[in-house]
Amino acid sequence: MAESWSFLDTFEPNFRPLVVIELAKGTKEETIDWFTKRIVDKKANGGAQLLVKPLVTENGNENIYLVGASHLRLLLGAETVGLVKECNDNSMRTFTYSSRKTFKDFADDNHNFLTMAEGQYIIKHELENLRAKDEKMIPGYPQAKLYPGKSIVRRLLTSGILVQIFPLHDREELKKLRHSWYGQIKVGYQPLDEIRCYFGETVALYFGFLEYFTFALIPMAVIGIPYYVFAWEDYDKYVMFATFNLLWSTVILEVWKRICSIMTYRWGTLLMKRQFEEPRPGFHGVLGINPVTGREEPLYSSIKRQIRIYLVSLPFVCLCLYFSLYVMMIYFDLEQWALDYHEENESNFSSLMLFVPSIIYAVVIEIMNRIYRYAAEFLTSWENHRLESSYQNHLVLKVLVFNFLNCFASLFYIAFVLFDMKLLRQSLATLLITSQILNQFAESLLPYWLQKRHKKRMKKRMCSLKTDVDLSLVEQINLEKEMGTYFGTFDDYLELFLQFGYVSLFSCVYPLAAVFAVLNNITEIYSDALKMCRVYKRPFAEPTANIGVWQLAFETMSVISVVTNCILIGMSPQVNALFPDSKMDLILTVALVEHLLLAIKFIMAFVIPDKPRDIQIKLAKLEFESLEALKQQVRATDMYNSEK
Amino acid sequence: MAESWSFLDTFEPNFRPLVVIELAKGTKEETIDWFTKRIVDKKANGGAQLLVKPLVTENGNENIYLVGASHLRLLLGAETVGLVKECNDNSMRTFTYSSRKTFKDFADDNHNFLTMAEGQYIIKHELENLRAKDEKMIPGYPQAKLYPGKSIVRRLLTSGILVQIFPLHDREELKKLRHSWYGQIKVGYQPLDEIRCYFGETVALYFGFLEYFTFALIPMAVIGIPYYVFAWEDYDKYVMFATFNLLWSTVILEVWKRICSIMTYRWGTLLMKRQFEEPRPGFHGVLGINPVTGREEPLYSSIKRQIRIYLVSLPFVCLCLYFSLYVMMIYFDLEQWALDYHEENESNFSSLMLFVPSIIYAVVIEIMNRIYRYAAEFLTSWENHRLESSYQNHLVLKVLVFNFLNCFASLFYIAFVLFDMKLLRQSLATLLITSQILNQFAESLLPYWLQKRHKKRMKKRMCSLKTDVDLSLVEQINLEKEMGTYFGTFDDYLELFLQFGYVSLFSCVYPLAAVFAVLNNITEIYSDALKMCRVYKRPFAEPTANIGVWQLAFETMSVISVVTNCILIGMSPQVNALFPDSKMDLILTVALVEHLLLAIKFIMAFVIPDKPRDIQIKLAKLEFESLEALKQQVRATDMYNSEK
Repeated sequence: MAESWSFLDTFEPNFRPLVVIELAKGTKEETIDWFTKRIVDKKANGGAQLLVKPLVTENGNENIYLVGASHLRLLLGAETVGLVKECNDNSMRTFTYSSRKTFKDFADDNHNFLTMAEGQYIIKHELENLRAKDEKMIPGYPQAKLYPGKSIVRRLLTSGILVQIFPLHDREELKKLRHSWYGQIKVGYQPLDEIRCYFGETVALYFGFLEYFTFALIPMAVIGIPYYVFAWEDYDKYVMFATFNLLWSTVILEVWKRICSIMTYRWGTLLMKRQFEEPRPGFHGVLGINPVTGREEPLYSSIKRQIRIYLVSLPFVCLCLYFSLYVMMIYFDLEQWALDYHEENESNFSSLMLFVPSIIYAVVIEIMNRIYRYAAEFLTSWENHRLESSYQNHLVLKVLVFNFLNCFASLFYIAFVLFDMKLLRQSLATLLITSQILNQFAESLLPYWLQKRHKKRMKKRMCSLKTDVDLSLVEQINLEKEMGTYFGTFDDYLELFLQFGYVSLFSCVYPLAAVFAVLNNITEIYSDALKMCRVYKRPFAEPTANIGVWQLAFETMSVISVVTNCILIGMSPQVNALFPDSKMDLILTVALVEHLLLAIKFIMAFVIPDKPRDIQIKLAKLEFESLEALKQQVRATDMYNSEK
Repeated sequence: MAESWSFLDTFEPNFRPLVVIELAKGTKEETIDWFTKRIVDKKANGGAQLLVKPLVTENGNENIYLVGASHLRLLLGAETVGLVKECNDNSMRTFTYSSRKTFKDFADDNHNFLTMAEGQYIIKHELENLRAKDEKMIPGYPQAKLYPGKSIVRRLLTSGILVQIFPLHDREELKKLRHSWYGQIKVGYQPLDEIRCYFGETVALYFGFLEYFTFALIPMAVIGIPYYVFAWEDYDKYVMFATFNLLWSTVILEVWKRICSIMTYRWGTLLMKRQFEEPRPGFHGVLGINPVTGREEPLYSSIKRQIRIYLVSLPFVCLCLYFSLYVMMIYFDLEQWALDYHEENESNFSSLMLFVPSIIYAVVIEIMNRIYRYAAEFLTSWENHRLESSYQNHLVLKVLVFNFLNCFASLFYIAFVLFDMKLLRQSLATLLITSQILNQFAESLLPYWLQKRHKKRMKKRMCSLKTDVDLSLVEQINLEKEMGTYFGTFDDYLELFLQFGYVSLFSCVYPLAAVFAVLNNITEIYSDALKMCRVYKRPFAEPTANIGVWQLAFETMSVISVVTNCILIGMSPQVNALFPDSKMDLILTVALVEHLLLAIKFIMAFVIPDKPRDIQIKLAKLEFESLEALKQQVRATDMYNSEK
């Protein structure tokens, strides 16, 4: 490979901008010179060997730079990041430059072999891996310290010199995608492969999950409707519905793993090797020798982190949980007050007032969730995790626990302390519907409206009346750099997770929840699609092979819902009437059924293979080939060494 | 590597026999010639390049062959099987011949660098990988078909030409090991590292687990004694004991994983790469192309196997379970009859008779377990699994389910149908103690006595009065080839698993069970050690990194025991007296406690890392190095290719 880099020429006539770098206004000239030189410089000199062009605007401020790369450079970068592509024989293989001819659709002049999103991902990877050599600081900024091996871009970001890096939209492609995604009224699947090409695997997988989950809820919704319509109150019907729901939720979560592996195999991410994880940008510490890599880098004692986690974060989370319970008790006081008021006055107004506490509480829950989210992010970042994955796990855990309690505590209280099934049904409905409306509004419609207003103002200022597509590059970039940043799929999954809770935790009390969930998800697909295409900056593609910790979260929720549903059924007067004499029999029966259901769930999860058979065979084949290749390679290297 | 093989000379003056091959009497001359030639032949010609010598006995039957290998051949074999050894810098690395100088204690003339057990493992691996080239059948036996790539040794075994292959004991080493293991009366740990050197990792890990488990039971036993001595019957004390037991069992299983990883890291097996799994010897089918390897080999349709599993094995297992329950009901009839008899007669004899049904039942259970074991082996082998691992999993599952029901069904029946705690305690004690005595007898003492008798007869026949150590090689081999074969650790783990069930499932009823378990395990260590050293043929060493499916089995048992103990406590009159008015509260409290305990268990299992921090760092370091090396190697190969 070493000499292949010399093929590369930094100059290419048809420069295609892929990524935008925005520097802070008034960044020193010497810093800009040094940084752009490092980006353009040859690999051998420690550069990234990319192409850079300043964006010339009419008002002449030169703080925006466009980054691109030659076709050859992108192909070599694809090898570095370990992209997996389809071969001519329809198998998926890790792309290498030397075996490029064996890949499907490869031709030296086919610049569409790599999608634009892949190119942008490669450039992001190369920029982030631009590392300091012997610089002690960023030229012009003595306070921005560097040490050998430190990522330059990360230091520029943390010291505020670099404002943002974002990938450019491809307006032609986006228009096509929008049209096939939500532009036409039609019944059908989302164009997941196109979404993946444009936004990357993480986003496509979210939409895939959302769609799958919506379809999976339809049977529950269909079975739930007659319960509502005919007001079935028989014990056996409820038990049947709950049992179906509980087993069904296990089946859908297991089947999702299979569908997910089929999709990610096709996309190549199922086969991508895990890269060695570098410290996350925000990580700081005292310079020392990393025992794993032997490199000099900041170290932070694990004990200090444990102390921060267990002595600060944990008590804080507990306090928040307590506060959330306290708010819940206030809600119940309000509820009681509203009831009393209604009984005293008996007017239309007073019967409307009955719903007010629930609605207020739902709004308060949403607000508390959002405030807590910021606190959790601050705390987790203060815990100073070395790896992004560990940061994410701690953040997800904090947020999930609080959101779970905050959303469901009142329902648990009503169900298992007040034993008021009517109130439970009513609260569940109010909470579910209010939170769905709030979410749809806060998540997409509000930002969309703000964005629309901003765009109009921009257009007026530019005094141009061109249509969307004909915007010049300068205008496009000026528009896009002001757009909000999409912070990943976390909130979207969280919303689905809580919805799953509303549907499954008390499914035997309120079968209609699934219907609302399905309706919400259908509009959710459209509003999320709108959000991705219209409201936010294009996000960098992020290769991923599964939905990660969310799979576990959904599975945990489905286990908890077995417990709650069994208790609810066990407490129902109909079931109690079946055991008039012996409460002992009731205990044993309910416990038996619950444990039987749990056992069936675990056995089902165990028996249903996570990957379909043909994917298993394909993976085994690749593993076999790589073992064989390794043997060959060891032999070849030995031969090479012995010839020397 | 290719030319390193040419260093090898098949002739070596000091031939050390490592493995014994016993052919069937009257094996044709041409077969023997062909087979020994293939063993001795150069690697390049498809041979195993080992050394072979016929054992010349006085009566001249030449059906026993000794296999050895030169020191160099063993080192190259160590590289092939991927042995991991300690380096000079105390890190563990995969052994390669080219880097041999960096390994601890390596010297070209140090023939003890590889232990004898490792040498035997390498020879076994090489023999099993001796594959047919263009032979269509085994010479002299047209019915024993071969096809390219078929393991010759496996075909010889399945067609009965090869009687057995077993590794030789090293009488000097064995004497030393015996002395430090059980030869002296002392309090202390077992010499696990020496056991591992002599018997391999699988056996050492079993003894490690047995020892660890015994120590782990001591706190339970110590806490259990006062309950028995002072006849404590308070509700709170039982709850405390049960809670302690349940959490303790989670802790010990989690800590075991850590201890196991420390041991197997030291032994190198934690780092050993999984080799590509070849079909198991008994697997048969129609010749076809394997979709994974692309090689011609027997294929067997997965659907046919599924049909055999679900339409034959599953019903058979269910039938056996039903039969076991039927036998249990007979036992209860007997029990009732004994009770009636005792009430009628009231004599010493009749009170002894009270114990007879339990003892008979315990014996019947043991017998049924053993018969079922054969049936399960037959069925699983008939299911025709392609891989040994899949065969083992199906066998373990069948055996575990039956043994679990067979051993514990009567206890469950007594506890949750008869509600007779006194009878439960008595049955538990009888079952536990009887099965322990039976096991110790059937497993080691009986075979030991048979072996002893056989040895005496042998000695008499040889008319020699030499001591054990001075036996000639011929005598030693004649002795060893008649010894029983050790079929692996399955039965030993199964015994521990059932014991764990007796201790934990009803721990709040019979705290003394842990005391018996500890006492049994102490003698078990000695009797198992005796069995390994004196009764059985030396087993081939088998590298392993953990106790595999047994970890899961023990964890499942500890989950089940949470459930049983909570129900037992919930049903106790003392607890019922606490909730005189509301059975509903009782239900909720018991369910709450149970689920809380289960949740704590899962959280503990999640929070306690499976590997200690220093092992984690060492593993991460190795992974980092291998990723770096891969990059280097790709570069080197490219350079080599481009130079050509």
